[in-house]
Amino acid sequence: MRRGIARETKLRAMGEKRAYFDHAATTPLDLRVLEAMMPYLAGAGWGNPSSIYAEGREAAKGLDLARRRVAELLNCRPAEVIFTAGGSESDNLAIRGAAHGNRRRGDHIVTTAIEHHAVLHAVERLEQEGFRATYLPVDGEGFVDPGSLERSLTGDTTLVSVMYVNNEVGTIQPIAETAALVKQRARRIVFHTDAVQAADYLDLDVERLGVDMLSIAAHKLYGPKGVGALYVRQRTPLQAQLLGGSQERSRRAGTENVAGAVGLATALELAVRERVTRAAHVRELRDFLLGAIPADLARRLPSNLSLCFEGVEGEPILVNLDLAGMSASSGSACTTGSLEPSHVLTAMGIDEDTARGSLRLALGKDNTMEDCQRLVAALPEIVERVRRLQPSYRLAAERSAASSAGR
Amino acid sequence: MRRGIARETKLRAMGEKRAYFDHAATTPLDLRVLEAMMPYLAGAGWGNPSSIYAEGREAAKGLDLARRRVAELLNCRPAEVIFTAGGSESDNLAIRGAAHGNRRRGDHIVTTAIEHHAVLHAVERLEQEGFRATYLPVDGEGFVDPGSLERSLTGDTTLVSVMYVNNEVGTIQPIAETAALVKQRARRIVFHTDAVQAADYLDLDVERLGVDMLSIAAHKLYGPKGVGALYVRQRTPLQAQLLGGSQERSRRAGTENVAGAVGLATALELAVRERVTRAAHVRELRDFLLGAIPADLARRLPSNLSLCFEGVEGEPILVNLDLAGMSASSGSACTTGSLEPSHVLTAMGIDEDTARGSLRLALGKDNTMEDCQRLVAALPEIVERVRRLQPSYRLAAERSAASSAGR
Repeated sequence: MRRGIARETKLRAMGEKRAYFDHAATTPLDLRVLEAMMPYLAGAGWGNPSSIYAEGREAAKGLDLARRRVAELLNCRPAEVIFTAGGSESDNLAIRGAAHGNRRRGDHIVTTAIEHHAVLHAVERLEQEGFRATYLPVDGEGFVDPGSLERSLTGDTTLVSVMYVNNEVGTIQPIAETAALVKQRARRIVFHTDAVQAADYLDLDVERLGVDMLSIAAHKLYGPKGVGALYVRQRTPLQAQLLGGSQERSRRAGTENVAGAVGLATALELAVRERVTRAAHVRELRDFLLGAIPADLARRLPSNLSLCFEGVEGEPILVNLDLAGMSASSGSACTTGSLEPSHVLTAMGIDEDTARGSLRLALGKDNTMEDCQRLVAALPEIVERVRRLQPSYRLAAERSAASSAGR
Repeated sequence: MRRGIARETKLRAMGEKRAYFDHAATTPLDLRVLEAMMPYLAGAGWGNPSSIYAEGREAAKGLDLARRRVAELLNCRPAEVIFTAGGSESDNLAIRGAAHGNRRRGDHIVTTAIEHHAVLHAVERLEQEGFRATYLPVDGEGFVDPGSLERSLTGDTTLVSVMYVNNEVGTIQPIAETAALVKQRARRIVFHTDAVQAADYLDLDVERLGVDMLSIAAHKLYGPKGVGALYVRQRTPLQAQLLGGSQERSRRAGTENVAGAVGLATALELAVRERVTRAAHVRELRDFLLGAIPADLARRLPSNLSLCFEGVEGEPILVNLDLAGMSASSGSACTTGSLEPSHVLTAMGIDEDTARGSLRLALGKDNTMEDCQRLVAALPEIVERVRRLQPSYRLAAERSAASSAGR
């Protein structure tokens, strides 16, 4: 083991490429995306899109084109696309904007226990403001039961938010069916889906999905950090959350991040165009990993492999993988540093100790079979080593030895 | 005139540099700033700063360094700097965050009639939520009367927000004295200043200014669009507005825009380092323009020249300047397209017709004397031409001719 790490450290020092297995946390910027952004960073498109003169018009042209491309890829109208500063802002605008925008119609919101914190904490804030909320439970695989969703809907329900793909475990909710179920009950209920993790691999056609709002983020798609978008179906009442100038049809104030919007549009276009090849590629790698590390994968994103090692904490595994030149995560990156076990895993009924031993592998388009072979070669040794060094395991082993001796 | 425009159009077609006089709307990205950002766009710093492995640590290092540089330049602690998506978000977070964060202490907010809409509309939203607000008037030069500020403060006042430099007319409020006056009344009143327009030329030392919160935006400083910062003095109660992950010490959720933060820090550092030369340069150019176009300039930003032409609308002047290869604005860029006269000019007591004829020249570090000579040569002809073609002027001239004839 030690020899293995020493070899990896040496290889890293020699500039060997690291193996990155955390594409659900963020992705490297695709150089084709950066190239598309450059005219709006260092070229002629640097103006303020609200200005009427040449520099402003050039910037506005880039922003309009980006909006039209995103709209085409989502199968919606350009005016239905709001550019934001990222997935969290998209989620916040969707949840808070629709709840407050529909307040006179009702005060009840339905979401699930496994949403990203950008949705969960926004709903919790609404509860503090006098709204009522239902957090739907999920089954052991992380799926929402349609029956419990149906029973949760009341005459006061104005908003339902169900994530498309879970960021930790990669389960895919049947959004089209879920939205249809809600709309069948009452067309006026606004249906939102957080598609931040889905955008790379799944259909984002808002008509086929039947959703009223959909959130995406560029940096999960090999695009830049700091930019996202929210699709909002026309005539959906939405209260702006960021106030000031009349940008984005007065739904989101602030000078537009033109380069970012162009980056998002380009990243999304590449993702849609290369979706089939990217999915086939990560699925092949994932299936290889599966051969070495079995898990149940029904209705999971092809890029995701979420594992739990009993009696082992996730963090030391990550540290050892890192030393060996490999990057992976335990639970969501946004809660790193927190000692809480993942709210997603505990909602799935996994006990806290096991949840602490979770390992998330999120593959990406640039991963190679060599990366995966490296992981498969290193992981069993690392898990075994961490298990041996862990106080709780040692304690349990000693107890077991003591009780054996006592018998 | 026509010949002049034809010549300009020809020169533009030949690639002649345009003259840009709208640095208050936005500024071109300084290539030194872009260079500092590149490692976080296309280099080793692309990871998620919340991740514990090498790519994440590299990103976190860049973010931390950016935060420490901004803190040093503002003379505060790194933990007191919150990175945002821009000036509007900084203002919204300051106003809504402090009002809600201090609600149990009181419900009264004081601001001025000439703030940016990011402040004004945020305060108006608070009024809808049950807060009370006072909008201080300004004098004919755009200055707040200290007496009226003093009289506005009550036992329920929790927040005062006064902008450092007005974006339309460039007037500089005496922030240190204003903050001191408020703090003398009650230390617990939170004092915020929108320093978005001030950052290029004025002192941003939060200790010398005595402010509790201060907003800046990168793209007004030759930095990238889509990133800003809010200084928040430690122990200032602040309710987060963007909810989700625990980034920015749980005061602003969302994966950090690392390249943007590095860009902001670099842009601010260059601005502070080059402040004296930049200010001297634009002052010289401004003084040259003043010789040709007289105006009163006491306590104005050295880069700003705000003019009103009686009986002439601003927009056709801008269109004609644009055709002649020059970019300027009328009122704030954020309200372009709106038929409303500027709220700043009307607050200064300028009548609506005159306000509609406003022209804002905002100089920048890369403007040349040649740019200004070009403007001085073209402007009188353009104003005269627009005046002649304008229906209201023609109508007034006809009426005047008719009444003369009648006498």
